[in-house]
Amino acid sequence: MSSLGDVKPQVMQFTEPLPLRSGARLSDYTLVYETYGTLNAERSNAVLVCHALNASHHVAGTHAGEPRSEGWWDNLIGPGKPLDTDRFFVIGINNPGSCFGSTGPMHVDPATGRVYGADFPVVTVEDWVDAQARLLDRLGIAQLAAVLGGSLGGMQALSWSLRHPDRLRHCIAVATAPNLSAQNIAFNEVARRAIVTDPEFHGGHYYGYRVVPKRGLRVARMIGHITYLSDDAMEAKFGRGLKGGAPGYSTQDIEFEIESYLRHQGDKFSEYFDANTYLLITRALDYFDPAREHGGDLAAAFAGARCKFQLVSFTTDWRFSPERSREIVRALLDNRLDVSYAEIDAPHGHDAFLLDDARYHGVLRARFDNIAKEFAA
Amino acid sequence: MSSLGDVKPQVMQFTEPLPLRSGARLSDYTLVYETYGTLNAERSNAVLVCHALNASHHVAGTHAGEPRSEGWWDNLIGPGKPLDTDRFFVIGINNPGSCFGSTGPMHVDPATGRVYGADFPVVTVEDWVDAQARLLDRLGIAQLAAVLGGSLGGMQALSWSLRHPDRLRHCIAVATAPNLSAQNIAFNEVARRAIVTDPEFHGGHYYGYRVVPKRGLRVARMIGHITYLSDDAMEAKFGRGLKGGAPGYSTQDIEFEIESYLRHQGDKFSEYFDANTYLLITRALDYFDPAREHGGDLAAAFAGARCKFQLVSFTTDWRFSPERSREIVRALLDNRLDVSYAEIDAPHGHDAFLLDDARYHGVLRARFDNIAKEFAA
Repeated sequence: MSSLGDVKPQVMQFTEPLPLRSGARLSDYTLVYETYGTLNAERSNAVLVCHALNASHHVAGTHAGEPRSEGWWDNLIGPGKPLDTDRFFVIGINNPGSCFGSTGPMHVDPATGRVYGADFPVVTVEDWVDAQARLLDRLGIAQLAAVLGGSLGGMQALSWSLRHPDRLRHCIAVATAPNLSAQNIAFNEVARRAIVTDPEFHGGHYYGYRVVPKRGLRVARMIGHITYLSDDAMEAKFGRGLKGGAPGYSTQDIEFEIESYLRHQGDKFSEYFDANTYLLITRALDYFDPAREHGGDLAAAFAGARCKFQLVSFTTDWRFSPERSREIVRALLDNRLDVSYAEIDAPHGHDAFLLDDARYHGVLRARFDNIAKEFAA
Repeated sequence: MSSLGDVKPQVMQFTEPLPLRSGARLSDYTLVYETYGTLNAERSNAVLVCHALNASHHVAGTHAGEPRSEGWWDNLIGPGKPLDTDRFFVIGINNPGSCFGSTGPMHVDPATGRVYGADFPVVTVEDWVDAQARLLDRLGIAQLAAVLGGSLGGMQALSWSLRHPDRLRHCIAVATAPNLSAQNIAFNEVARRAIVTDPEFHGGHYYGYRVVPKRGLRVARMIGHITYLSDDAMEAKFGRGLKGGAPGYSTQDIEFEIESYLRHQGDKFSEYFDANTYLLITRALDYFDPAREHGGDLAAAFAGARCKFQLVSFTTDWRFSPERSREIVRALLDNRLDVSYAEIDAPHGHDAFLLDDARYHGVLRARFDNIAKEFAA
């Protein structure tokens, strides 16, 4: 249950082209966003919440008339919640390239008059951060109290501290990493191959064929889900449970409960997610690597950062393990930056960052309480 | 380089139906096998080597006129090697359902006169062990000096100790598990979905269409490869290396070296492996669970075992981790069975069982030296 109640997405048009890291530009684009709470007179209580792979600007609250439409981080954000909308002005922005309203591959390229499809420019974490900054310019927010994100959202929070060091006072990065490991990239690549080799992908121009590469999307989502859950959580939840109680000896029918769960997740995902967006967002993950321009020296990458940092990781997260967060913490400490780090003993794997764990939410609540003191004083 | 030289596959026909665990029967089937070394007069020096998912009866030596045709465990088996063919009579058997010569889904069902395809009966580890036992009957081998296997092959070795406890003196099970975890099953299921949903799978009857569901096989193999390698090994071998040196900003082209490696592995595999076989063998993995009939009590499952055991695991194997081998060791010890266990500190992940690691091969060499003393004395 959301305690924020109904919220409404808003739309902002941008005519000035956004220069992208690839060298391309995004012209005449739209960003969809939501805000919760009230911007104070000093414009100092704004918190930007960055979304991960399959999420959106709809971070908290519900959409009127839509049952079960709670935002993806509704357990964290709302009146009296750890990120308290009675004190903070919270902003969620759908990133360009996504499929929840902001300009993406399913929209018409103004330069050609045709749907972008696979020709949508490759977008990076840095591009998203720049797009978000422009939207904040238009909202008249010069400096954010904090940028908060988990997983890929955490990468955006980190990138904010590098690209716009004076525009945020706190960076809160949860269950994230300074870059993807070879294994992380490998999982992304298998998911992409499943999509790209689906005959209904049509080279990324499937919209014109009125089909969707659902087979590829299903497989991609199933792979993703395995990496989101810890081995132990999967064992505890499904184990070797048989759907029918006894083996049916079939290679194609569902035998084990875990199969049923994964197929269901894959089916659901293929109904609402866009295949080109999946490619774009996994690539943004692959490319993120702030140390790269500094010869692999992450501490050098953070040399220009000025905000305070809160890092959080989860012990059973094998996608972005605590060790990856510790790499970031070390790089920040090397720069004598103000950093707090919480390693939460949670059984849920990477998914833990979306769940309502008392110790985890306690850390974030304490952090936001302290941040609120800065502008309440 | 093989030191065994050229070897020849042999073929054995079976007319008596093989009853399968599913309740079905396999009639009029063929098994392909190879033997190396010489069976001694007492018929006491035979070692059966069981193969894993994508391997075959061709365990060691080369096939005449075929370059690079060394058997899959040639580094371990041959004259003077840890499993010394100057002392042992080594047997490799291709399991039914596989795609390397023994009766499988690409062959004609004698009952219908049509190619089996997806109608090939589901085979289990236990069925394979029984089929192997029948072949040994025909070779006049009442008792094996040892059964050796890694991964799925290790499950067959364990199953031998349960189904035919008097027919082996040693069970050597490497990098294996007492059953698959939910996560193991999950990876298998994603691979199967990739194959089954490939439009060229045609419900498993693709042979008649003269196509092969290569897209699905490629994705399946890519997923498999991720689980065979350790995170660290992948990081050391590929890291975040870019194929072109700098990012090309593409969602579909190869950017990272790990992508190139995985695509290559997938392509190769799809050229020679059979899709129905992939389904059958992953299902045999899923179903293996000797504790199941004993209310989940693995020690109870091993109550009838009488041979000596050697277990080996590898520290970085996250597919079948050392903890899974320790579960087996504990169950064997609970039965006061003779068990040795070696946990090898190796960086290669699950693949380590196929590699020439000095400590690992040292353990097996010592074991086989001791076994040879039993019949040399």
